[in-house]
Amino acid sequence: MPRPLRVAAAQVGRVDRSEPRASVLARLITLLEEADKQAVKLVVFPETTFTTFFPRYLITDDVELNSFFENEDAVTGIVDAPNVKPFFDKAAQLGIDVVVGYAEKTPDGVPYNTASYVSGRRVVSKYRKVHLPGAFEPFNDHPDTTNQLEKRYFKPGDLGFQAFRAPSLRHEVKSPIIGMLICNDRRWAEGWRCYGLQGAEIMCIGYNTVAWAPELWGADPNMDRDFARQDALFHHKLVCQAHAYTNAMFCITAARCGWDDGKFELITGSMVVDPEGHIIAENKTDGDELVVADIDLDACLQGKARTFAFEKHRRPEHYGVIVERAGVVEPPEVI
Amino acid sequence: MPRPLRVAAAQVGRVDRSEPRASVLARLITLLEEADKQAVKLVVFPETTFTTFFPRYLITDDVELNSFFENEDAVTGIVDAPNVKPFFDKAAQLGIDVVVGYAEKTPDGVPYNTASYVSGRRVVSKYRKVHLPGAFEPFNDHPDTTNQLEKRYFKPGDLGFQAFRAPSLRHEVKSPIIGMLICNDRRWAEGWRCYGLQGAEIMCIGYNTVAWAPELWGADPNMDRDFARQDALFHHKLVCQAHAYTNAMFCITAARCGWDDGKFELITGSMVVDPEGHIIAENKTDGDELVVADIDLDACLQGKARTFAFEKHRRPEHYGVIVERAGVVEPPEVI
Repeated sequence: MPRPLRVAAAQVGRVDRSEPRASVLARLITLLEEADKQAVKLVVFPETTFTTFFPRYLITDDVELNSFFENEDAVTGIVDAPNVKPFFDKAAQLGIDVVVGYAEKTPDGVPYNTASYVSGRRVVSKYRKVHLPGAFEPFNDHPDTTNQLEKRYFKPGDLGFQAFRAPSLRHEVKSPIIGMLICNDRRWAEGWRCYGLQGAEIMCIGYNTVAWAPELWGADPNMDRDFARQDALFHHKLVCQAHAYTNAMFCITAARCGWDDGKFELITGSMVVDPEGHIIAENKTDGDELVVADIDLDACLQGKARTFAFEKHRRPEHYGVIVERAGVVEPPEVI
Repeated sequence: MPRPLRVAAAQVGRVDRSEPRASVLARLITLLEEADKQAVKLVVFPETTFTTFFPRYLITDDVELNSFFENEDAVTGIVDAPNVKPFFDKAAQLGIDVVVGYAEKTPDGVPYNTASYVSGRRVVSKYRKVHLPGAFEPFNDHPDTTNQLEKRYFKPGDLGFQAFRAPSLRHEVKSPIIGMLICNDRRWAEGWRCYGLQGAEIMCIGYNTVAWAPELWGADPNMDRDFARQDALFHHKLVCQAHAYTNAMFCITAARCGWDDGKFELITGSMVVDPEGHIIAENKTDGDELVVADIDLDACLQGKARTFAFEKHRRPEHYGVIVERAGVVEPPEVI
């Protein structure tokens, strides 16, 4: 019996450092209304959906830095955070489930790079980004430099990789099993596998990925901008397609993209990938855009029951080193 | 300082069930001579290089089944196995390091799907395939049916994933660090990561991958043959490129390909992939062919020191489930 579902990635274009929350919210609500017109049931929004991607800047003013975070309600979580409540009210009113990324400040003041799955104003599950890229210190504090200061502004996620059911999307007796990752996480096989081992059928991923930052990358500062952008997009698609295939799940990726402040370029790549690794829907623009696809969750069965039937083929007795240490130990040189 | 090396995949075309070892050896030696002409230092050969891919057949005659295995010498290993000694003598004479896959029968009679790294008639390292695909029982014993009976004919590898140095390929003070995988292993992120955590710079992979077997796959028996072949090739490239990129290593893949017995088709896809996931050399035929590339091992540094600097970014405290169980445990249904 098929288990059909209409899903979408909500791509969000240019957001400047100074763009007010109200302006961003109005754009996000327009995307929700478009999703409603198309009868979409689940929409994935980007990482730090409500603001520009502020970890690219060295921000030393605490007032400005705090302005990029959402203060969660101690009981209801993100849905009553003052700056963004209208967005969740609208999604609930339209009956659309959403995955939304944002900079979280806990009631105790701890900062995380977070995504929540929200259905009818209820936070069904929360994920905090585990693989924070970049460094604590800026490599160059010139105001026009692209930094990557997530390690400075966020704590690494402390919730692990918890797959969960989305009962609002239930077919007959079975609710879809969902996982969430944020940006750089998608390059790390471990998170995907942890979700795969919980039977996840849809991976939801928001991201901000720089299109050209040779100084940040330690690359030739004169490297070709078109090559850099295409290569960043190639890597994004490569890892999402491969990890979706090898874990037999769908994957929805939502980009923050465009030229923030008119000078910091982010890649696009919003798409829906099927469990065989094929891209079945993809963005056409580099601005606000809803990328819609009809999927059948039973398409996961071929991979889950045969090629990647984990219980038949995996050999955990040989995987110990994956959890025994973080870094590399090389074999000794042979004299 | 660059660390240049000329490497090759030795693709091997059609080998029938009845093709004598001597005929296959002559073809392999021709490929070695071609590698010597081109000054190649390391050549990767396919899985079960010396025979057809016999696990596609249900073989009930022990004499025939045993004829596909190499009997290793208890001291020197594969290099003195009677059927194949001339191949290793030739490689040693030409000063070429080789990775070769073969069906191994230990002196105690235990069968493995094995690859050895051999340099100057010395077995530098041995790998036994961990992820055996298929089933113990045939799904159909018609003689023209493609089965996948590796679980019937081999024991799962017992050596884990041991990266090793290749001192014969040393530059100045540093020998390349090598890993080996066999066929289906390349689809499983765990093996790659175990090697990545040992600093591997070159992954060597031989394979036999069926191009069209809808009955084996449980797919529509009328599925389009061109689509099936292209999709199998797509999956092969996707996983090799993604895992090479996310582990910041080169990858050399060598196919057994062509139409065995004139009716069992295997995909090509012999290639060399760089640590950014780009294919830098690729087969042009579906027959015997040497695919040569000049690589610089220092190209691994960008990935190993930045994007995938494991010690900075990995969080093993969240990966426990990867080693705690083989199979899936789904989250409970929500009522």
